[in-house]
Amino acid sequence: MSAAQPVRVGVLGRGTVGTAFVELLTARAGAVEAATGRRPEVVGVLRRSEGDFEEILAGSEIVVELIGGTDPARDYVLRALRDGRHVVTANKQLIAQHGDELFEAARRAGVQLRFEAAVAGVIPVIRVIQESLSATEITRVFGIVNGTTNYILTEMARTGASYEDALARAQELGYAEADPSDDVGGADAAAKMAILARLAFHTPVGLGDVAFEGIEAIQPDDLAYAKQFGLSLKLLGVAEHHDNEISVRVFPCFLYSGHPLAPVGGPFNAVMVESPSITEITMSGPGAGGTETASAVLGDLVSIVAGDAPVHAPRERLEVTRDLDSAFYLHLEVADRPGVLAQVADVLGRNEVSVRSVVQWGMGEDARLVMVMHQCAERRFYSALDEIATLDFLRAEPRAIRVIEEEFV
Amino acid sequence: MSAAQPVRVGVLGRGTVGTAFVELLTARAGAVEAATGRRPEVVGVLRRSEGDFEEILAGSEIVVELIGGTDPARDYVLRALRDGRHVVTANKQLIAQHGDELFEAARRAGVQLRFEAAVAGVIPVIRVIQESLSATEITRVFGIVNGTTNYILTEMARTGASYEDALARAQELGYAEADPSDDVGGADAAAKMAILARLAFHTPVGLGDVAFEGIEAIQPDDLAYAKQFGLSLKLLGVAEHHDNEISVRVFPCFLYSGHPLAPVGGPFNAVMVESPSITEITMSGPGAGGTETASAVLGDLVSIVAGDAPVHAPRERLEVTRDLDSAFYLHLEVADRPGVLAQVADVLGRNEVSVRSVVQWGMGEDARLVMVMHQCAERRFYSALDEIATLDFLRAEPRAIRVIEEEFV
Repeated sequence: MSAAQPVRVGVLGRGTVGTAFVELLTARAGAVEAATGRRPEVVGVLRRSEGDFEEILAGSEIVVELIGGTDPARDYVLRALRDGRHVVTANKQLIAQHGDELFEAARRAGVQLRFEAAVAGVIPVIRVIQESLSATEITRVFGIVNGTTNYILTEMARTGASYEDALARAQELGYAEADPSDDVGGADAAAKMAILARLAFHTPVGLGDVAFEGIEAIQPDDLAYAKQFGLSLKLLGVAEHHDNEISVRVFPCFLYSGHPLAPVGGPFNAVMVESPSITEITMSGPGAGGTETASAVLGDLVSIVAGDAPVHAPRERLEVTRDLDSAFYLHLEVADRPGVLAQVADVLGRNEVSVRSVVQWGMGEDARLVMVMHQCAERRFYSALDEIATLDFLRAEPRAIRVIEEEFV
Repeated sequence: MSAAQPVRVGVLGRGTVGTAFVELLTARAGAVEAATGRRPEVVGVLRRSEGDFEEILAGSEIVVELIGGTDPARDYVLRALRDGRHVVTANKQLIAQHGDELFEAARRAGVQLRFEAAVAGVIPVIRVIQESLSATEITRVFGIVNGTTNYILTEMARTGASYEDALARAQELGYAEADPSDDVGGADAAAKMAILARLAFHTPVGLGDVAFEGIEAIQPDDLAYAKQFGLSLKLLGVAEHHDNEISVRVFPCFLYSGHPLAPVGGPFNAVMVESPSITEITMSGPGAGGTETASAVLGDLVSIVAGDAPVHAPRERLEVTRDLDSAFYLHLEVADRPGVLAQVADVLGRNEVSVRSVVQWGMGEDARLVMVMHQCAERRFYSALDEIATLDFLRAEPRAIRVIEEEFV
């Protein structure tokens, strides 16, 4: 491969993910070239009604399969591997049901088959298990690997809605498909857990090895009563290694509030990997979405082109700035007398620093004035602080600590 | 490289991490061979008082630097890279202070320089940024990258202890060094953030570019007052990309309780990576510890030997079992009359299922009996459930849902 030649990429499928992938690849072509030395070039996109597989295969070095389902995806991917093309796919059913055959074809041809996007959206759990932990004794992999059901359970717990109403809401928002049975019945999570178990335990695992249950029978009652025990409900996938046996299961399950997965809400996914030598790694992020899935596919594609791990090389030289915005907590020990709060508020106001919350505690002669500000330019806050430090009613140095205001899912 | 030849590994340093690494490499030699086709062999371990660097270098294919500090680590690593050896290091100061020179030497020699263990313990943030996200536009990387300070702040918030007392406790438990100044002053986190900013933004970042503050001035007061606003305190590292500028900072900072980093307590680390195309990935795990650091070093070593990404190959065939233990939640709609609870408890007891919590709600003629069991063999619980389903006071099908009992940090 000459460094100057573009990487010829054939794309199979042009649904949501296919479209997002072609857009992302185009937008990030410069970054791919910076990371790998080669610019990507889409040689063709196969749609149901348009494009010719043979032609795309002949022109491609890497085939990206984003059709979904197993037919014709299985035939196309096998053909591509056997013809010596690297393959990237986002297709969990393909890997879960035909993994043995596909891995064998890739090994024989000496090409790569990557599928990060098939499990847990943007969470790079495949790479972490296959690369970071490939010589580590993994004892358990478990987590929330279906965003649809996690959204539905979160809504039921939050609003008291019935399963049917929460499902309808998920469908409105695009978190559930018109026919949601694979998601809500647990089959989707089962396919993902079969893949994770196979990679973590280095053993063939098929869909039939996974015992799964869905969430259709969950009643709002259960969520309400369980809340009184401090429990929250998740659809969990759990793959465990016990001596010479493994178990791979998907089931709805209550977690106590201290559990790392308990706060994972909405359509998010999260996976935990346990091993005696790492204790545990927890990873979370959006479960799906066109751009997110496309991003995972892009990561795989870049790794194929880059080959061995990249040695860091700067792409540009960026200026370092320290002129930033922050929110602040401010703690003042003051004399407990009238007008103190007014004077402090006046200084803040003149410096355009706006107060979000304030609490004053009296303590005999002294008082504590504790305030949280809204975000503002740090230099404005520090200029106010310099002025406040000179006020005669202060009993100690003011103490300021930054506050992160952002709201998260 | 013939597949039959062992991988010759030279180890520099035999402190806690060096010792743990040699043990782990020995214990996992078979797994390394299964993952890479080659068995690892330690050709020598350099200690302060023992061993000869030149001899170890001459005999090694991969040099693992676990001395720490920059002198003599920098000289040794430069020599190894220039002599064509791949290098794995856990040394954050080395990469933060001498990154430009070391990456340049690795590129010229065409060898790999890997350093996953240098940042955030077992969390594979270096690999995720450099490989999964190497063509992704990262806008922000931030998190808790120092376990010592996170332990101290968690203790202060939990017990009301002073900074000095919490530090003393961290020292007793081995979470803080005798001279803790690099950790508590923020310099350790600053070095890690310099590395993360460099990799995320593809630009040279030195230690001098990082503005940092520590936690020495934090008062228990601040934690107590802030709790009233729902805030918890963390020492955060934040690297951001704004247009053509970046900022890299370390500072103590309050987070609202919904923030994904708010529940990260004790000596744990956590890192979030944000990008428009992935939304965000959050990763957490133990910040340090000999075995955990050794495990991150091992992952790098295996990646070097494996070269291109592995195609999954089974190492053994494990049996799938479904005979497992679980805890259960049980929901019964029953007639509200005397003796109901006693009969249910009797069935459970005879099946050796032990009750952890029980709540009964009366509702006119009917009542709800909701119980959480301790962990037991699933078949015992299901046998009890079959028996309960036949009791004549039941008003509806019993509903059972599994419960994860485990406690986490």
